[in-house]
Amino acid sequence: MNRLKVGIVGATGYGGVELIRLLSNHPHFHIYSVYSSSQQHVQMVDVYPHLANVPYTLEQIDPVKMAKDVDLVFTATPSGISSKLVPQLINEGLKVIDLSGDFRLKSEELYEKWYKKPPAPNQYTKQSVYGLTEWFGEEIHSSSFIANPGCYPTATLLGLAPIVKKKLIKEDSIIIDAKSGLSGAGRSLSNVSHYAEINENMKIYKVNQHQHIPEIEQVLHRWNEQIKPITFSTHLVPMTRGIMTTIYVTLKESIGIESLYKLYEESYLDAPFVRVRKQGTFPSTKEVSGSNYCDIGLTIDERTNRMTIVSVIDNLVKGAAGQAIQNANLMMGFEQQTGLHVLPVYP
Amino acid sequence: MNRLKVGIVGATGYGGVELIRLLSNHPHFHIYSVYSSSQQHVQMVDVYPHLANVPYTLEQIDPVKMAKDVDLVFTATPSGISSKLVPQLINEGLKVIDLSGDFRLKSEELYEKWYKKPPAPNQYTKQSVYGLTEWFGEEIHSSSFIANPGCYPTATLLGLAPIVKKKLIKEDSIIIDAKSGLSGAGRSLSNVSHYAEINENMKIYKVNQHQHIPEIEQVLHRWNEQIKPITFSTHLVPMTRGIMTTIYVTLKESIGIESLYKLYEESYLDAPFVRVRKQGTFPSTKEVSGSNYCDIGLTIDERTNRMTIVSVIDNLVKGAAGQAIQNANLMMGFEQQTGLHVLPVYP
Amino acid sequence: MNRLKVGIVGATGYGGVELIRLLSNHPHFHIYSVYSSSQQHVQMVDVYPHLANVPYTLEQIDPVKMAKDVDLVFTATPSGISSKLVPQLINEGLKVIDLSGDFRLKSEELYEKWYKKPPAPNQYTKQSVYGLTEWFGEEIHSSSFIANPGCYPTATLLGLAPIVKKKLIKEDSIIIDAKSGLSGAGRSLSNVSHYAEINENMKIYKVNQHQHIPEIEQVLHRWNEQIKPITFSTHLVPMTRGIMTTIYVTLKESIGIESLYKLYEESYLDAPFVRVRKQGTFPSTKEVSGSNYCDIGLTIDERTNRMTIVSVIDNLVKGAAGQAIQNANLMMGFEQQTGLHVLPVYP
Amino acid sequence: MNRLKVGIVGATGYGGVELIRLLSNHPHFHIYSVYSSSQQHVQMVDVYPHLANVPYTLEQIDPVKMAKDVDLVFTATPSGISSKLVPQLINEGLKVIDLSGDFRLKSEELYEKWYKKPPAPNQYTKQSVYGLTEWFGEEIHSSSFIANPGCYPTATLLGLAPIVKKKLIKEDSIIIDAKSGLSGAGRSLSNVSHYAEINENMKIYKVNQHQHIPEIEQVLHRWNEQIKPITFSTHLVPMTRGIMTTIYVTLKESIGIESLYKLYEESYLDAPFVRVRKQGTFPSTKEVSGSNYCDIGLTIDERTNRMTIVSVIDNLVKGAAGQAIQNANLMMGFEQQTGLHVLPVYP
Repeated sequence: MNRLKVGIVGATGYGGVELIRLLSNHPHFHIYSVYSSSQQHVQMVDVYPHLANVPYTLEQIDPVKMAKDVDLVFTATPSGISSKLVPQLINEGLKVIDLSGDFRLKSEELYEKWYKKPPAPNQYTKQSVYGLTEWFGEEIHSSSFIANPGCYPTATLLGLAPIVKKKLIKEDSIIIDAKSGLSGAGRSLSNVSHYAEINENMKIYKVNQHQHIPEIEQVLHRWNEQIKPITFSTHLVPMTRGIMTTIYVTLKESIGIESLYKLYEESYLDAPFVRVRKQGTFPSTKEVSGSNYCDIGLTIDERTNRMTIVSVIDNLVKGAAGQAIQNANLMMGFEQQTGLHVLPVYP
Repeated sequence: MNRLKVGIVGATGYGGVELIRLLSNHPHFHIYSVYSSSQQHVQMVDVYPHLANVPYTLEQIDPVKMAKDVDLVFTATPSGISSKLVPQLINEGLKVIDLSGDFRLKSEELYEKWYKKPPAPNQYTKQSVYGLTEWFGEEIHSSSFIANPGCYPTATLLGLAPIVKKKLIKEDSIIIDAKSGLSGAGRSLSNVSHYAEINENMKIYKVNQHQHIPEIEQVLHRWNEQIKPITFSTHLVPMTRGIMTTIYVTLKESIGIESLYKLYEESYLDAPFVRVRKQGTFPSTKEVSGSNYCDIGLTIDERTNRMTIVSVIDNLVKGAAGQAIQNANLMMGFEQQTGLHVLPVYP
Repeated sequence: MNRLKVGIVGATGYGGVELIRLLSNHPHFHIYSVYSSSQQHVQMVDVYPHLANVPYTLEQIDPVKMAKDVDLVFTATPSGISSKLVPQLINEGLKVIDLSGDFRLKSEELYEKWYKKPPAPNQYTKQSVYGLTEWFGEEIHSSSFIANPGCYPTATLLGLAPIVKKKLIKEDSIIIDAKSGLSGAGRSLSNVSHYAEINENMKIYKVNQHQHIPEIEQVLHRWNEQIKPITFSTHLVPMTRGIMTTIYVTLKESIGIESLYKLYEESYLDAPFVRVRKQGTFPSTKEVSGSNYCDIGLTIDERTNRMTIVSVIDNLVKGAAGQAIQNANLMMGFEQQTGLHVLPVYP
Repeated sequence: MNRLKVGIVGATGYGGVELIRLLSNHPHFHIYSVYSSSQQHVQMVDVYPHLANVPYTLEQIDPVKMAKDVDLVFTATPSGISSKLVPQLINEGLKVIDLSGDFRLKSEELYEKWYKKPPAPNQYTKQSVYGLTEWFGEEIHSSSFIANPGCYPTATLLGLAPIVKKKLIKEDSIIIDAKSGLSGAGRSLSNVSHYAEINENMKIYKVNQHQHIPEIEQVLHRWNEQIKPITFSTHLVPMTRGIMTTIYVTLKESIGIESLYKLYEESYLDAPFVRVRKQGTFPSTKEVSGSNYCDIGLTIDERTNRMTIVSVIDNLVKGAAGQAIQNANLMMGFEQQTGLHVLPVYP
C-alpha cells in the first residue's frame, strides 16, 4: 500500500518533533514535509540535533502548495495561530488534525474569556470534532477536521468519563489536582522553565484559571448536563514528561469498589490505550512515558464516601502527538493503534 | 552564657543529620553527643562524608549515661523505636523532643489502627505536648517533652488553622493533595526510592491510608469539633526536599479574598516563620528550601465558592529538625528563631 | 515469514526489560518466554507495572526445555551467573547473546583480577565473538555466541577506533573521562543509587579500577598492539539514561581537523547507528536517548596538539539491549537495523 | 562592634542573591543596599519570592552616593559591565570585591582573545589581587580590590596547587575534565538552560575555548613557569549547584600515594575550607553543597604513572559568593571563616 503523505506545521515545537518521532515508524503515513512560520529553509537537524540522520528541511506555510503535496496536515501551532491557518487549509480541501486549543471550545464567548484572544471563525469551529478518541471514535471516523484535546483534559476526561456518564457522583463535587512535567510548557524560554529555577522545585500555577477548564466542562456537560463548575489546579513538577491528575469526587450513594472497577474495565474494554490498573495499585507517570497509554487507578474512602481517581499520560504522546495520530488513524480508516505500538520507556 | 548540652539519637537518619547542620550554628545549644542504635563507635564522617570536619562519633544509647551528659535529647528515631526509648529518657529526667510519630496521637486505638504497631505507654503520651510551634507555643514553653509534628501535618495545619478556627468552612469539605520530595521517605533503601525508578517520575501512595491523617484530624478537632474526616493523598515528586500541600475547602458563606488575607496575616503576625505571600501569588517549594519557613498562598474560586490554600515547607526543616529546634528554643526560654536565621538556599 | 522464537534470561533487570521494549516491535523475533533465577511464576506486570498489557510470566531457567522452546537466548544476567549458565545453553545447541561481562575477556587471569570472581570455562570464552557490531560484523554474522560489549567500552571504542587503527595517536596518551546515568548501576538497591543521595549530586567511582578497562584495552590491542595502559574514570550523573565519554589523546603529528572528520565519516559510512556530528558541534546524551545511536564529536586543540573525542550512547540501548539485538540481527542474517528504527525520545 | 556597611551590585543574579543569603548571618558585615543596572526601585522579593521577609529594594548604581553609604562593594556584575563600573567605585575610594572575570587576567591581549570584549583599563587590573584565598591570603589582606576567582579556576587550582608548586608533574600533562551544574550558567534565559532540554541530559561545551583557561594558566605560571598549555573541557550536568573537576596529570617520577597525601594535607593545614578526604575516598558535589568547602581526593595509577585529582565545590559559594566573603573577611582583618560556618546542606 502506498503511504499517505502528511505534513506537519509547527515542527519545531515539542508537539511537532514528537509527531516526527512517532510517524517515522508509521506503516501508512509518510511525512512528506514539515513547516514552520518562523524558521524556513532551515534543516530540522540544526534545530534538533537528535534528528541527525533525518533529512527534513523546514518549509514555508503555503496552503495552496500544501494541498498539492499532502493529504493530511497536523497543525502543532500555538493557539492564536491555528485559528487563522486552519481555515485556509480546510478551504484547500486538506484534512486537518489541529493540536492547538483554537477549535476545541464551541462557544466563542468562552474562548475569548479563557484564551484572551479572538476566536476562530465559528463556521470552522462548528465543523471540528473533539478528538478524545476513546469516546468520540465514530464522529472522528467520519470527520476530516479534528480538534485534538489538550493534555490535561485528556487525562482528566478519561478518568472521569465512566462515573460522570453513569451519574454516580455529586455534580458539584469535582476537584482535579493536576501535575505536569515541564515539556508541557513548551519550548519557548521563560523564567519558570529555566533549569535552575524549576529543578528541585514544585510550583502551582493558573489556579482555577487554566484555559483547559472550559474544555473539560464542555465535554462533561455532553455526558451529564447537571455537572457544575469544577475546581482545577495545575502544578509543575521537576520532570520533562508526564501528567498525573488526581481527581476527587463525592459519590451520590455508596458503591462497592468492585462494581466501580467493573464499570471502568467495561468502559475501556475496547480501548487499547487505556489500562485500568489492578485494584489496590495506582499508576505513576513514568509507567506510560514515551507511549500512548493512559493508565487509571481508583479507590473509595469509606470514611468520606469520596472516590479518588488517578490517571496518568505522557503529555506529548496521549496528551498531544500520539492521540493526534490515533485520531488520524481512525479518520483514514486504519486501526487506531497503527504506528503506536510502542511500550513505555522504562526506566 | 554556657551553651546547653544536647544529644541527638538517630543521628544517621536524614532528620538527625539535619539537626546537626542546624544546631552547629546555634548560639545556646551545643551538640555534646550523637547516638545510634545500629552503628556505634562509628564516626559520623564515615556515614556522611559531608561532615568531613565534624568530629562526632556515634555512641551507644544508654539513658543513664545520657542523663549525666546532656540536658536535652532530640530523638530522631523511627516510629516503634521512640515508643520504647523515650519513656526511659524521661524517667532519667531528660527533656525530650521526639521527632517520631509515636507520641503524637493521644488515642492508643488510633495509633494501632494507623501505625499498625503497639502504642507507647499512655502515661507518657499524655504528658507530651504537640509541637506545632505557631499554635501551641505556651504549652510548649512549659513542657519538657514535645511530640514534634509530622511533615505533612505541619504544612497542612498551618494552612488550615485560621479558617478552621474561625469556622468558615464546611466541615466535611477538606481535601488535601500533598506532594513530597524523596528525603521524606528516609534513608532506608527501597525500590520506590531507587533513583532510576523515581527520577523523571511521579507516584501517588498511601491514598487515604497515611498515618498522618489521624494526626491532622486530632488537631483540627481541637480547633473545631465539628470537622469531619478529611481526604488526604500523598505523592512523591522527583526532588530531594520540599513539601507542598494543595488544600481544597468549601466556604460556608461567600467571603471576600481581602478579608481572608487579613485573617491569615493577622493569624501569623507574630509567627516569624510563616510567610503569607502577596495576594495573587503562590509559594513554590524551593522558595523555602533549607530554611524553617512555611509559606502560604490563598485564592477563592467564585465559580465554586471553594478556597484553595497552598502551603510549602522544607520537610527536613520546618517539617522535622527546624521545628524541633524551634520547640527546644521555646522550651528553654529562648526566642523561637534562635539559631534558625537562615535564608532559603536558592536556586 | 515466521518469527523466530527468542528467550530472555534476567528479564527483571533493566537490560532485560529494555530487550522486551525493543523486541516487542521486531518483525522477525518473537519473545517466546522470559526467565528469572530469583522470581518464577511471577507475572512481569507485577515486577514492572508499565508492562500492564504484556502477558509474560517469569519461568524457571531450564536449559533443556529452553532448547525445545526457543532458537536464541539473550542472557541479561549479572557477571558470575552467565559464566555458569551460558555453557549449559550452548551445550543444548542454543544461540546465545550474553549481555554480562563473563565472556568478554579472553584472558582468565585478567578476568579474575578485574572481576574478582572465577572465570567462565575457557573453551566457551574462546568461542565467543565480541559484539561491537560496527567493527566485528563479519565474525558476528558467522557466530552463534556473542559476548555483547559493556556500555562504557561501546562508547569508548567507537570513539577511538578510527584513530587507533590508523595509528595516529601516541600510544600512551589515552585518557577516558566517562560519565553515566544511574540505570547503568542496575536495579539492585544501594546507598549510591538512593534518590536522595544521588539527586543533585555527581560522584566519581572505581577510579582506574573499573572492570571495563581490560575490555577496552583488549580491543585496542587488536587494533594496535602498541597501545599502552589507558587512564579511565567513571562518574555517576543524576540522570537515568545516558553515557558520555570524553576522550583525550595526543596526536603523533599535526593533522588537520578536516582530515580527521573525513577519517571518521569514512570509517562509519556503512554504520547506520553511528552518527558523526557536524564539525564544530558535539552530541549530548539526551540526543540519543531511547535509541541505538552512538553520536560522535571531535576537536583538536592546536595549543596542545591534543584531540578531544566525545561519544554518547543510551547505556541501555546501544550500551546493552539495542546492540544485542543488532548483533542478533547480523547473526541471523537480517539487516542490522531491523527492529531498531526508533528515533531518540526528545525532549 | 558596629557592623560594616556593604553594598551588592548585581543583586538579581545568582551570585548576588547568594551573597545576600550568606551575608545575612555575617556578624561584621551588614548589607546596607543592593543595586541593579536593569531593575531599579524594584523590591528584591518581587524578583526572588524566597526573600519574602527581606526588605531590600534595588537601587540605581551611583558611585558617588555609594561611596557615602557603604564601605565595601561586592560587584556581582557580568563581564563587560564590571570593567566599566569598578574603576568608578575605586576612584570614589570604595573597597571592591569583583566577582566578574574582568580584572583577573593581567594581560589585556589574553582578555580580548578569550573574552572577545575590550579589556578594563590596565591601571586598575594591575591593582587587583587575585582572590584565591588559600594561596594569596597575604596579598588579599593588604589589598582593597580583589578580582574574585572564577568557579572552575577555584576548583582546578586548589586541586593542582600542591603538585604544581612542588614541580612533581610533567609540565605538558595537565588535562582538566570539568563538570558543572546549571546555576553556573546564570539566570539569563537560553535554550541550553531550558529545563526540558537539559534535564536528563549531559552536554559538553566550549571545548578548549572556555575563558577560564587563561585564568588557570596565569596562576599555574606564577607557581611554575614551565607549565605548558592545559587541556580543559567543561560539561553541563543536570543539577543546579556543584562543580567537579577531574584532573589528570603525569608524574615526573614515581611517588608514593602516602607522600602525596602528606603533601596535600600539609599544604592545606591552615585552610579551614579545604578538606583533603581520607585516602581511598573521593568527594561528590553534594557533599559541599551550600557550603564554602572545597573537598579533594587523590589517587595514583601505577599502570600509567598518572595521578587523578578530584576537587569539588559549590559553584555559587566557594566558586563565587562564599570566596568573595572569605576575601572580604581577610581584607578587613577578620578571620576568613567569619560568617561562613555553614555545613553542607545534605541530602
